[in-house]
Amino acid sequence: MEETCYFEDYQVGQQRLTMGRTITETDFVVHAGHTGDFFPHHLDAEFMKTHEFGQRIAHGTLVFAVGVGLGAGAINPAAFSYGYDRLRFVKPVFINDTIKSRLTISRKEPDPKRPGFGRVWEQLEVLNQRGEVVLAAEHIYIVRHRPVTAAA
Amino acid sequence: MEETCYFEDYQVGQQRLTMGRTITETDFVVHAGHTGDFFPHHLDAEFMKTHEFGQRIAHGTLVFAVGVGLGAGAINPAAFSYGYDRLRFVKPVFINDTIKSRLTISRKEPDPKRPGFGRVWEQLEVLNQRGEVVLAAEHIYIVRHRPVTAAA
Amino acid sequence: MEETCYFEDYQVGQQRLTMGRTITETDFVVHAGHTGDFFPHHLDAEFMKTHEFGQRIAHGTLVFAVGVGLGAGAINPAAFSYGYDRLRFVKPVFINDTIKSRLTISRKEPDPKRPGFGRVWEQLEVLNQRGEVVLAAEHIYIVRHRPVTAAA
Amino acid sequence: MEETCYFEDYQVGQQRLTMGRTITETDFVVHAGHTGDFFPHHLDAEFMKTHEFGQRIAHGTLVFAVGVGLGAGAINPAAFSYGYDRLRFVKPVFINDTIKSRLTISRKEPDPKRPGFGRVWEQLEVLNQRGEVVLAAEHIYIVRHRPVTAAA
Amino acid sequence: MEETCYFEDYQVGQQRLTMGRTITETDFVVHAGHTGDFFPHHLDAEFMKTHEFGQRIAHGTLVFAVGVGLGAGAINPAAFSYGYDRLRFVKPVFINDTIKSRLTISRKEPDPKRPGFGRVWEQLEVLNQRGEVVLAAEHIYIVRHRPVTAAA
Amino acid sequence: MEETCYFEDYQVGQQRLTMGRTITETDFVVHAGHTGDFFPHHLDAEFMKTHEFGQRIAHGTLVFAVGVGLGAGAINPAAFSYGYDRLRFVKPVFINDTIKSRLTISRKEPDPKRPGFGRVWEQLEVLNQRGEVVLAAEHIYIVRHRPVTAAA
Repeated sequence: MEETCYFEDYQVGQQRLTMGRTITETDFVVHAGHTGDFFPHHLDAEFMKTHEFGQRIAHGTLVFAVGVGLGAGAINPAAFSYGYDRLRFVKPVFINDTIKSRLTISRKEPDPKRPGFGRVWEQLEVLNQRGEVVLAAEHIYIVRHRPVTAAA
Repeated sequence: MEETCYFEDYQVGQQRLTMGRTITETDFVVHAGHTGDFFPHHLDAEFMKTHEFGQRIAHGTLVFAVGVGLGAGAINPAAFSYGYDRLRFVKPVFINDTIKSRLTISRKEPDPKRPGFGRVWEQLEVLNQRGEVVLAAEHIYIVRHRPVTAAA
Repeated sequence: MEETCYFEDYQVGQQRLTMGRTITETDFVVHAGHTGDFFPHHLDAEFMKTHEFGQRIAHGTLVFAVGVGLGAGAINPAAFSYGYDRLRFVKPVFINDTIKSRLTISRKEPDPKRPGFGRVWEQLEVLNQRGEVVLAAEHIYIVRHRPVTAAA
Repeated sequence: MEETCYFEDYQVGQQRLTMGRTITETDFVVHAGHTGDFFPHHLDAEFMKTHEFGQRIAHGTLVFAVGVGLGAGAINPAAFSYGYDRLRFVKPVFINDTIKSRLTISRKEPDPKRPGFGRVWEQLEVLNQRGEVVLAAEHIYIVRHRPVTAAA
Repeated sequence: MEETCYFEDYQVGQQRLTMGRTITETDFVVHAGHTGDFFPHHLDAEFMKTHEFGQRIAHGTLVFAVGVGLGAGAINPAAFSYGYDRLRFVKPVFINDTIKSRLTISRKEPDPKRPGFGRVWEQLEVLNQRGEVVLAAEHIYIVRHRPVTAAA
Repeated sequence: MEETCYFEDYQVGQQRLTMGRTITETDFVVHAGHTGDFFPHHLDAEFMKTHEFGQRIAHGTLVFAVGVGLGAGAINPAAFSYGYDRLRFVKPVFINDTIKSRLTISRKEPDPKRPGFGRVWEQLEVLNQRGEVVLAAEHIYIVRHRPVTAAA
């Protein structure tokens, strides 16, 4: 569950694919109630009948939060989350779509401000059941360097 | 509720401050259940007693999703969300902190790819009860230009 | 569970007192998310510090819906709900208050429009842990008359 | 968000129509869990197959609480809610019906007991996607008079 | 609501059948979020298309918890729950199945360790809309003997 | 995430300890709403003041479902759940207790009825923050034998 992974341990190109999860009407209603965003795009089936998508679409923050959550596997005590860059809502997610997250280590660099730490970029792609990317983002982690041990 | 706002209508520097909302233990539990992220940082008070923060901290995606939701006021049929840049988790949010969102139009530019549309950047800052920024991000909208009317 | 009770069976003055239920911060958050009413009176502890009540107060519709729910015991297939009169929010309900419902048959009359049916009024009083009435309402049921059996 | 509106500012006949919201099976389940009312009319599809409506119907308190919540727009610091009269469950609401609230100022009178305040009645009508009224009620507000300013 | 029932009052063979409840997709999502078990058997419709059942199946703990909850009627202050034996997941429960619980007193014995108490076994069978047993378990209660009154 | 583990791979004595989770008031309210069990032992703080425990206690099915959920790690496609024996509610769980699950392979045997399968018993112990067992149960899995490969 806990799995220490130092800056040196990350390999650019490493990839993992999560389990899938069907996004249900319940998730739409829960997300509206959790965030307070009751916009008709997400909750009003009648309103959306005349909209280009023809049906309710998931909140962007729903797809992002669930996509991130799908990737929450082992805890790395040597890393913490700094933020995200280039979060993009690429395609709509509809009720009954099934999503997975594909996570790829895309870059690593020394941290300019924090001695003893580096930055690791993990590309997050949320895929639907047709393999289309529906959301993309770059997760930036701050990761501790492997401690130097005495001798050697 | 619907309030059409064209690219020309956005003024750089415009700012709005939302209502506040106290982030409760319930929100932590709901967010874990909604996203599937049950990391002990968010849900295990014992584990966090020995952690630098001393107590459970909110998921980054919770603060983001609720911060965005607080700003969901009027629907603008002339705009849609393209994504976010520079999403940063600046400070931890604890149970019983009260947050508000401050939204500032920070930049606008013609859209290089979509004729008839421009891009508008809205800076999102989530503030706690001490006025500290706990999360920041730049929201990018794609917004239609005001239709040119014939003569007049 | 099902208990048929005809118009003739209701006795003015009959009273029942339900089990109690502590109204939690969770109930406030759930009710906001269920109804979409995120007013700071219910959800913003900071805002309420300077308000006369000094703390968050329950939505009126929360106290009403839970108060009604506490009384949902046996199903009476001979009755249906017509509506409520004189619903009054008498006192605020705070987080951690414990409420019960007291239900009293207060009146019964033939139904002027529906032959074979009568109207029964049930007074609903929601009480807090100090026995104070926090909400009152008059529930109106339409109830079938006891079928007349042939000879005997 | 805050919009002070004194007794003098209300105009009989003023009307607003809210956004719509599709009532989902999730809302039925959430409402049962929130209120504790698990009657088979709302939760047992088999039981309702032989009932006149043929399917599960929404709790009256669900339609009321969501209908009221749809109208929760701007906060008026000069008003508070006194209660409701003539709350009527006019037609059943089924899973997948989409409702809106129509709110009309119907009456205003000096408050007999509170000097400096008046009473304002707002008629609440919850409409379904066919424009039928499914629930009606009269909301009574107590509203402060506009403060008299010195000179002029 | 409270109904004292002493060891002597239980009759082997007594049976009660609860109200029914349709198990919805919402219940699946709520149970996953409540327990943290997001296995694709319960939440991933795509994954289950190629599985022998062809569709998502309810968590065993969902069917158990709801089946037990359906039987929560009157409180018996003379009894407490000791545990369950032979809990078996007999058949899958699918979204939209309607379940009821059948509860039968199956055995009673003096409690070997607690003077003044006996043990009562209640057989729990959860049935679906076709009358098939989907879950079975034996509930063991510890029940106080009827107090001996002076004379008589 | 998927990790095939055949009957031969289970070792009696293998043990794993899960992450912890603080059981909150929210979990109590969610469990009541999910199961329909609103007994005052779980939801009425006033009622419990005079009870031996002095405060609300968790539903047995809550501790069981969450304790089982904490152990839901890797999916084993070679195994399925048969049921539980000797489920015992050993000590009460209170709001703010933090629980973990300890899972120990305690026994394995050929399955008398299913050729090619064996039975594996996993002892589930739910522990609180003081290391006390609050719930115990024996989980029975049916597990496929390792397929015999041709030559070698």
